[in-house]
Amino acid sequence: MLLNQPRLLERMADLQLDAVVATAPENVTYLSGFWALSQWIRRGPQVYVVWPAVGKGVPEIITSTSTLDLVADQIPWVSNVRRYGDFHVEVDPGMAEDPVDQRHIALRDAPAYRDALMALVTSLAEQGLTAARIAIDETGLEPSHMGELKMRLPNITWVPAAGLFRAVRAVKTEEEIDRLRQVAQISERSIQAALAVAREGARELDLARAFHIQTIKDGGFPVLGCIGFGERSALANVQPSERRLRAGEIIRFDVGGRYQHYRADIARNAVLGAAPPEARRLHHALLRGVQHACEIIRPGMSAAGLFEEVTNVVQKEGIAHYKRDHVGHGIGLDGYDAPSLSVRSNDTLEEGMVLCIETPYYEIGRWGLQVEDMIVVRRDGAERLMMTDGNLMEVPS
Amino acid sequence: MLLNQPRLLERMADLQLDAVVATAPENVTYLSGFWALSQWIRRGPQVYVVWPAVGKGVPEIITSTSTLDLVADQIPWVSNVRRYGDFHVEVDPGMAEDPVDQRHIALRDAPAYRDALMALVTSLAEQGLTAARIAIDETGLEPSHMGELKMRLPNITWVPAAGLFRAVRAVKTEEEIDRLRQVAQISERSIQAALAVAREGARELDLARAFHIQTIKDGGFPVLGCIGFGERSALANVQPSERRLRAGEIIRFDVGGRYQHYRADIARNAVLGAAPPEARRLHHALLRGVQHACEIIRPGMSAAGLFEEVTNVVQKEGIAHYKRDHVGHGIGLDGYDAPSLSVRSNDTLEEGMVLCIETPYYEIGRWGLQVEDMIVVRRDGAERLMMTDGNLMEVPS
Repeated sequence: MLLNQPRLLERMADLQLDAVVATAPENVTYLSGFWALSQWIRRGPQVYVVWPAVGKGVPEIITSTSTLDLVADQIPWVSNVRRYGDFHVEVDPGMAEDPVDQRHIALRDAPAYRDALMALVTSLAEQGLTAARIAIDETGLEPSHMGELKMRLPNITWVPAAGLFRAVRAVKTEEEIDRLRQVAQISERSIQAALAVAREGARELDLARAFHIQTIKDGGFPVLGCIGFGERSALANVQPSERRLRAGEIIRFDVGGRYQHYRADIARNAVLGAAPPEARRLHHALLRGVQHACEIIRPGMSAAGLFEEVTNVVQKEGIAHYKRDHVGHGIGLDGYDAPSLSVRSNDTLEEGMVLCIETPYYEIGRWGLQVEDMIVVRRDGAERLMMTDGNLMEVPS
Repeated sequence: MLLNQPRLLERMADLQLDAVVATAPENVTYLSGFWALSQWIRRGPQVYVVWPAVGKGVPEIITSTSTLDLVADQIPWVSNVRRYGDFHVEVDPGMAEDPVDQRHIALRDAPAYRDALMALVTSLAEQGLTAARIAIDETGLEPSHMGELKMRLPNITWVPAAGLFRAVRAVKTEEEIDRLRQVAQISERSIQAALAVAREGARELDLARAFHIQTIKDGGFPVLGCIGFGERSALANVQPSERRLRAGEIIRFDVGGRYQHYRADIARNAVLGAAPPEARRLHHALLRGVQHACEIIRPGMSAAGLFEEVTNVVQKEGIAHYKRDHVGHGIGLDGYDAPSLSVRSNDTLEEGMVLCIETPYYEIGRWGLQVEDMIVVRRDGAERLMMTDGNLMEVPS
């Protein structure tokens, strides 16, 4: 299961919640296993998951009739489904022998509510949660809905839930870690595929296309593809352009797709031909920063302390003026999960967190270098999810 | 320009607005030309565009310091930029001869606000918009921000803007239409690439990968890829699986990527080998519905009237029981732009609207068939953006 259920229940108890309601796509998928296409590719479509505290009711998915085919095909672990809205299909029950079709037909047999809000109000009311304390994820809810909910359920105490979900999602289950390992390694193979087309005169766009095509071949879906050459490697968000590669130039990758809805975010660097000694020196310091993080990470360590250690190492190992706001972040269904590895962070590392550890260095007009690895915080230290070592690569020119 | 500026100003005058504020990614890109990676791949990062009425001020982008490289590289038509937050880069002005770098450095020279909200408050205050009537796009704003804005700018009358933006975006500029034509045709070529791997025993996943790879080769980015075989073609949102193709089965595509941020959404059908006569008959009726829409579409026609005409034709041409809620929708930066071609729609077709006209038919347990074309409403009728005719295709088995 993706959901870290003990952690959710513990946080709910701490906050004395009678229920939580997920509304944003990440939280809906996390809480139920249900991936509703429409809300992942657009903003607007409303899908909710209601998760009552133990003894207070049964978890429920609330989704539109038009998405019931996905429920039937995915079999999410939350099996109670309340539907809203019309969506016409022809059904000849005699013909529908496939188990997906049978589940689909059964799901359509339930009554349809007029809209998502009415379905949510009824769900809470039927479970006796009309005078309850409920955390609702404010980030996926249609803006006008909060006012209507307060009007229709005036005795509920509403608490914002986005922060709660981020906190629960920060510690991954093994199933999540498996997906994150897969997507990290898909992204590494995609970098190799991009470097296979790197030659004098190749465009950033050529490498980006090779990158994304490999991601698709490996079962992933493209998301992030910052690939820049030479002076463009210093643009943090560089979008691949017609810029052509020349010998001796840096190629910086800050990239990562999705695999089974989980994100990668990794960074690697290469040079066409022999690396300039100065680039090699800077890169060594950045790599040492990430390596040091992997050496010292333990559950219980403060994120701000880790930040301090990593920047110190980069400074000592060769970039005395190295300055950063953060050296990484969690990753999961969202590309920036908790914790934040920043100077101002109050987070503490916990066993099971998956982190991107990164030491980017941008020198406008010259080059950008960045090492970023994905790791799991284990009881006895960091487990790297990577196949490659992060060294500066030299591509034959 | 993507923005239909006359239409925006006209609507603003109708609503007696002193300014509009865009917050959701589609509306930020639409209003300014600025595409901010972070807000397109995640929910949360705050980017705004303030657009005052004529004579009331100057349009401004509000974005984080970390995204200024994208502003410098893209040169959006809104050139005033207010930044917030820190993001450290090294700058050696002597080395930065590239024009992108020079713009980047100039953008970083402006003072940084503490956060997005402070930058927005200051922007409105400096333009003298503290006692104004302002429409703000409620869909991209962080939920807690609206309350803070009301507190800090108590004399502003705030109006929700998401509906206004949808209404303005509904009538496309020629630059938008060019992009929509490109992405429609990329999607058609991607269907051809998918059918090139269709043979007995091929998986839905094999066709989906070939589809997305072609989209990337043609400069697009994958989004929608519903591809189902046989009984799975009847699942409206079918996600490609290990299901293998057998002779005589329907392949339904409901697909479309992005190209320069603009979406495609088209549908086509094929059969491995000879098409069953009944599939051919049903498909003909669906195709006739779409063709009829293309024949009769004119500016001034009601969307509900078009819905009526299309469903009538499908019924007369062979599916007497045909029942739908809508027969299409607008398309642009969002996959579902205005207008809605539904039975309950109050929209009227206007010159320059780009529409998806669709006649899906889902028969659970048996098959799904769907024709969906993208067209432009021109003064004298529909201009199809498609290269292919929408006929049921037979793939040699």
